[in-house]
Amino acid sequence: MKRYKLEVAYKGTNYNGFARQLGDVITIQQTLEKAVLELTRQDVKVHGSGRTDAGVHARKQICLVELDTAIPTNNFARAMNSKLPDDIVVRGVEEVDEDFHPRYGVKIKSYRYQILNTNFMDPFVADFVYFYPYPLDVDKMKEALQYIRGTHDFKCFCASKTQVKDTVRTIYKLEIEKLENGVIQLDVSGNGFLYNMVRIMVGTLMEVGRGNIEPERLQCIIESKNRKLAGYTAPAKGLMMYDVQYG
Amino acid sequence: MKRYKLEVAYKGTNYNGFARQLGDVITIQQTLEKAVLELTRQDVKVHGSGRTDAGVHARKQICLVELDTAIPTNNFARAMNSKLPDDIVVRGVEEVDEDFHPRYGVKIKSYRYQILNTNFMDPFVADFVYFYPYPLDVDKMKEALQYIRGTHDFKCFCASKTQVKDTVRTIYKLEIEKLENGVIQLDVSGNGFLYNMVRIMVGTLMEVGRGNIEPERLQCIIESKNRKLAGYTAPAKGLMMYDVQYG
Repeated sequence: MKRYKLEVAYKGTNYNGFARQLGDVITIQQTLEKAVLELTRQDVKVHGSGRTDAGVHARKQICLVELDTAIPTNNFARAMNSKLPDDIVVRGVEEVDEDFHPRYGVKIKSYRYQILNTNFMDPFVADFVYFYPYPLDVDKMKEALQYIRGTHDFKCFCASKTQVKDTVRTIYKLEIEKLENGVIQLDVSGNGFLYNMVRIMVGTLMEVGRGNIEPERLQCIIESKNRKLAGYTAPAKGLMMYDVQYG
Repeated sequence: MKRYKLEVAYKGTNYNGFARQLGDVITIQQTLEKAVLELTRQDVKVHGSGRTDAGVHARKQICLVELDTAIPTNNFARAMNSKLPDDIVVRGVEEVDEDFHPRYGVKIKSYRYQILNTNFMDPFVADFVYFYPYPLDVDKMKEALQYIRGTHDFKCFCASKTQVKDTVRTIYKLEIEKLENGVIQLDVSGNGFLYNMVRIMVGTLMEVGRGNIEPERLQCIIESKNRKLAGYTAPAKGLMMYDVQYG
């Protein structure tokens, strides 16, 4: 039995998120497992480094699959891609030992969120951006970031339906940049993220950009641990799992 | 009655081409006409500068619509976009006089074709590229371009099912470039294009890149006026109507 670590990229538009689900929906995990089954005749689980919601993309998702197969490791990615649709791609495969755990071994996770802040939608990036054609004060949004960086109890940025106990997380990096094509790009890295944390953080920063929340209010919102004081949940399609780093 | 010139961009993936069709298919033209109808209650034709096939995209398609409406010209694009799906966008509207004809007035038309020449598919551009993961000699492809530029009878690059009489066209510009991300980009401008001309030209250049056709053979293929001597028709999804210029 060999343990394979897969680097996977996908466009989430046509999937009901990463995680296997019951019922008549298609997910990334199920599609990967189906490809493994077709390839190896083994009906095994493909474990991800974390879930992504419906419509969320991944530039780099890490998966683990345990298999008894004769396929050489350096042919495995190409073999998988021959069984996968164009919107899910295995970019690399390596063999790993028992110590590797795709979820608990994660040291740094990074996400990117893209807001298209132009007068007109761009049909070529429509699936990857949150289109917002009204003025946003990007400098104010940048000013607010200092209150989010570092270690905090981020309960205010956690979807209320989840029941995690420990809502303390550390944000190592958090930056916003407005690109020439009108995309406002947010890059965030941390030791972990709560459910919907990036999307609620973006929704809150949108309110800052619109002038509805002053940048320094962020400190008070975080201290309140109250989801209701934060902004709305920004749309899934602007979000991309960007990187996963192990220790 | 006012005559409006519309600059339209669209992602062709989910449409059965530009031109209105009978039966249970959705086209770009029908979708634009439906938006005009919803907006103005007028059931009128939207004329394009030319057709695009199913799956072909447009960065800049020019359309004409004649209407009796009180909507100010500078609000018309935004109003149309409020009725259109995300993959069709009106980028600009201007009023034009009787002399303007969207099809017969065209002086220069430009297309872009993109080949993704990397080991693995990129799921984020999958709808916009022809994925080809095998070696291509780009220098040889470039060498072949000199035989295509200029005024020729391009019957060899015309889909055999069409019945146009005059198959002479002038290619003003024809360039190939390999970008850092592995995309081989072909840009072509001319006074007009035959049916499937760009896609057959690309398919022929693919054979040059693979080493199956020597660059200088292009002269002989063009002179033969024989479709069977040219290469295959490259896939629609790599093609984009890039620009339309009027006199």
